[in-house]
Amino acid sequence: MIESAKNRFRSRLHTVIYEADTPAGKVFDLILLGLIILSIAAVMLESVASVQIVYGRELAIVEWVITIFFTIEYIGRIVSVKKPYAYIVSLYGMIDLLSLLPSYIDLIFPGLHFLVSLRAFRLLRIFRILKLVHFVGAANQLADALKRSRTKIAVFLFTVVVLCVMLGTVMYIVEGPEHGFSSIPMSVYWTIVTLTTVGFGDITPATPLGQLISSLIMILGYGIIAVPTGLVGAQLMRGQAVHLNTQKCPSCNADHHRDDARFCYNCGHILNS
Amino acid sequence: MIESAKNRFRSRLHTVIYEADTPAGKVFDLILLGLIILSIAAVMLESVASVQIVYGRELAIVEWVITIFFTIEYIGRIVSVKKPYAYIVSLYGMIDLLSLLPSYIDLIFPGLHFLVSLRAFRLLRIFRILKLVHFVGAANQLADALKRSRTKIAVFLFTVVVLCVMLGTVMYIVEGPEHGFSSIPMSVYWTIVTLTTVGFGDITPATPLGQLISSLIMILGYGIIAVPTGLVGAQLMRGQAVHLNTQKCPSCNADHHRDDARFCYNCGHILNS
Amino acid sequence: MIESAKNRFRSRLHTVIYEADTPAGKVFDLILLGLIILSIAAVMLESVASVQIVYGRELAIVEWVITIFFTIEYIGRIVSVKKPYAYIVSLYGMIDLLSLLPSYIDLIFPGLHFLVSLRAFRLLRIFRILKLVHFVGAANQLADALKRSRTKIAVFLFTVVVLCVMLGTVMYIVEGPEHGFSSIPMSVYWTIVTLTTVGFGDITPATPLGQLISSLIMILGYGIIAVPTGLVGAQLMRGQAVHLNTQKCPSCNADHHRDDARFCYNCGHILNS
Amino acid sequence: MIESAKNRFRSRLHTVIYEADTPAGKVFDLILLGLIILSIAAVMLESVASVQIVYGRELAIVEWVITIFFTIEYIGRIVSVKKPYAYIVSLYGMIDLLSLLPSYIDLIFPGLHFLVSLRAFRLLRIFRILKLVHFVGAANQLADALKRSRTKIAVFLFTVVVLCVMLGTVMYIVEGPEHGFSSIPMSVYWTIVTLTTVGFGDITPATPLGQLISSLIMILGYGIIAVPTGLVGAQLMRGQAVHLNTQKCPSCNADHHRDDARFCYNCGHILNS
Repeated sequence: MIESAKNRFRSRLHTVIYEADTPAGKVFDLILLGLIILSIAAVMLESVASVQIVYGRELAIVEWVITIFFTIEYIGRIVSVKKPYAYIVSLYGMIDLLSLLPSYIDLIFPGLHFLVSLRAFRLLRIFRILKLVHFVGAANQLADALKRSRTKIAVFLFTVVVLCVMLGTVMYIVEGPEHGFSSIPMSVYWTIVTLTTVGFGDITPATPLGQLISSLIMILGYGIIAVPTGLVGAQLMRGQAVHLNTQKCPSCNADHHRDDARFCYNCGHILNS
Repeated sequence: MIESAKNRFRSRLHTVIYEADTPAGKVFDLILLGLIILSIAAVMLESVASVQIVYGRELAIVEWVITIFFTIEYIGRIVSVKKPYAYIVSLYGMIDLLSLLPSYIDLIFPGLHFLVSLRAFRLLRIFRILKLVHFVGAANQLADALKRSRTKIAVFLFTVVVLCVMLGTVMYIVEGPEHGFSSIPMSVYWTIVTLTTVGFGDITPATPLGQLISSLIMILGYGIIAVPTGLVGAQLMRGQAVHLNTQKCPSCNADHHRDDARFCYNCGHILNS
Repeated sequence: MIESAKNRFRSRLHTVIYEADTPAGKVFDLILLGLIILSIAAVMLESVASVQIVYGRELAIVEWVITIFFTIEYIGRIVSVKKPYAYIVSLYGMIDLLSLLPSYIDLIFPGLHFLVSLRAFRLLRIFRILKLVHFVGAANQLADALKRSRTKIAVFLFTVVVLCVMLGTVMYIVEGPEHGFSSIPMSVYWTIVTLTTVGFGDITPATPLGQLISSLIMILGYGIIAVPTGLVGAQLMRGQAVHLNTQKCPSCNADHHRDDARFCYNCGHILNS
Repeated sequence: MIESAKNRFRSRLHTVIYEADTPAGKVFDLILLGLIILSIAAVMLESVASVQIVYGRELAIVEWVITIFFTIEYIGRIVSVKKPYAYIVSLYGMIDLLSLLPSYIDLIFPGLHFLVSLRAFRLLRIFRILKLVHFVGAANQLADALKRSRTKIAVFLFTVVVLCVMLGTVMYIVEGPEHGFSSIPMSVYWTIVTLTTVGFGDITPATPLGQLISSLIMILGYGIIAVPTGLVGAQLMRGQAVHLNTQKCPSCNADHHRDDARFCYNCGHILNS
């Protein structure tokens, strides 16, 4: 009997914590979302020196209340799930733990307090919570387009990195440490800053040859940004064009039917599903 | 009789102020457009210290003439419309009021003179006035493409903000206040500056690890700009890739048929050509 | 007889100077192209103080030789064309004159020597000379795509300018002259620098609210760059997709034929041309 | 007999060094890839002053071991190939030699040690080695899209360079040496920095007119980035909009038929399905 009550409690807990379709689950998720944002706001404000001086005490209280809630939630997640180990080693499990630990570690080693800010990673849970709403369709389409073009994007980024290493080395030889290009890694960093059109301006070429090569790097970066854009664009467009597939009508052989077509658009014959 | 004359005057006023298709309305709109641009130019020049010293008097006169015209126009708009309250609380009504108030407030509290520059928001009315011209087609297409991809853009921007909060926190831990990353909000601001490839250069990473993470942020920002571009591009293209039309099946009401479809893809019923 | 010889000379001159398909015309154009590039290189080098000191004399000689050649060419263009006035007031005619005048003016008013650099505009003639080569197809396609989307681009740029005026005014109120936003025109300039993701960093927001608004401006600029990109991309794509037109087969009613199709792809019936 | 054994050895060597499909060739390529990355890491670290002081000796040993391996590999490549001259003068042959020479030259002229960093160009070989893996499809598609739009990209980049020369000259006249625009080449460099939205901020316009022109340059750069993006995007999309296939008409040899074409669009002959 007790075992059964325990099981029922675990099942109920699971519904509330993990499932978002039930009313109780929805309320829990909204509270969790609010607390995550509140805790991140608290961590952010705490890092601002002027706020910390005035409201340090209040922020510490908020932090501890949230830490205790997150601890209870973490234990609840472990208790209510059938395979607790799978949850603990999952990405979300690790982040949930990482958002708790620093507060406790802080009691023993106060020097590591800054680790509390790792809690910002709990923001990732927002994506899980948002799974509920109608954003899911748009998000899936985007994720899908990115996933399908990931090989091309990998090839592109790899080419960019190779280019940056080579051009960074050239800039190091041309400009040298006396103009701020103090080492090859530094020059490669500068090349990335320039090629991606960020352009901090903390290091800038001073020799005419260096400025000429920089101009080429900039025009290159300005030009090749077209590639990832074209890739994702083409992929997103494909998503909305794949309504037509390559299935052939058994009667008239017409193809390019809609994916949800049951009858041939050309002769009206029923299609093989 | 007087009531009727009043009504006729109100109706006439409405035609002039609100309707732009009549000759009188057109003239009124053009004068209004000219005065809005003139008033913004005056406010802009007034803020330039060297101009203010020399032409301060002339600019003040221009400002008051325009303020009085705008006041008359504002009263006219309230008087001539059937539901004045709806106009007053509308966006345009608020902006019209906000562009008047500061000049009067200035008489009592001279310190708030800078609020006059809020008049710049009257520029928004330009969009209403331009409704007349042939730009409307192009503008509608753009607005339409943006509106239809707004969910995807919202998901994208939300992901960017979450990324910036997380990466900004990491940069704060790695670089710390001694290199200018004085607080988490400041680091998040820096991450936005870097990810969007703006790169002011007022704060730059100084540690090798910070520069490595910055490089990743820059390449990330350089790469994911493809997403909004692809989104809007795909949306703009959809309009013109008219393979699927909006014809409805006379039998099952399914739409989005191929242009060359002769039978409904859903029920096989013959379509009206 | 003399008149006829004169006419023949004029006609011959016209062939050489204006026509690029004849061997003599080609040689003339290549020499002209070389001299334009040489003259621009000379003007550029002359502006570098260290080069001017050492090679000033040689550059002055090069400049005068080219000026004399350009003068002869200019007279030749006027003499050989039937409507010299049309040439003189054309864009190319003005630029040709503007590239000569400064050298002569310089003899009288040496202070205006810097105007010689206006010669850089003769580079525009390159586009006329390149008309000959196979680049013309690609250039036409680009120019065509830009021309057909010019209304949309105008609407977009107009919206961007209105946005920059409004946001620049807000930044002026928020940050004020004490943080470098010394006037509204200056703030609008800063907003353009930020929105276009250039980000010089000569002026940067210092207040938390200013940094928040800046972040919004940056994300806005990062997002709306999608619009012109999508516009031109959609236009360029349209160009290559119009191979299929909406003509209907007189026999089977199939449409979306290639523009150069003479027979229906579906039933083989001859199409109306 | 000896000749034949020599031939067999050469053939075996060729298989290992040049062919990547055999097990031995794969192992060789992976070792080579590892050594190239190791050697670049060593060169990079050597350029960091603080690392050089502590690990200088170890890095020198690594460098020499790799140099000797690369030397053996280079000799092997020459010996095992039938036309050694073709390899030596090829791009890869030149880079392979250039990555060896500096280490030996360094023994005689220690001042030229920095040339060792030219070894970074051996990274190019990565592309050859990666030919094996499944990235090749994506890379080919990208390279193909870039190759097919290279004329348009050339026209575009040429226009950008002409624009930068002209606008840079204007900025030199407007701002002049007293605001950092010290010469025309410098102004052209600044215009490239601005037009490509890099924006270092080392030089910034100081006069109102200069800031107005800068704003136009920025908006121009922000707008015309659409062109290369649209170009590559349109090209990438063309590949997948397979409405037209490469089937050839058996009668008139016309190709690029619609996928659903049953008859040739050009001569009306029936197509092979």
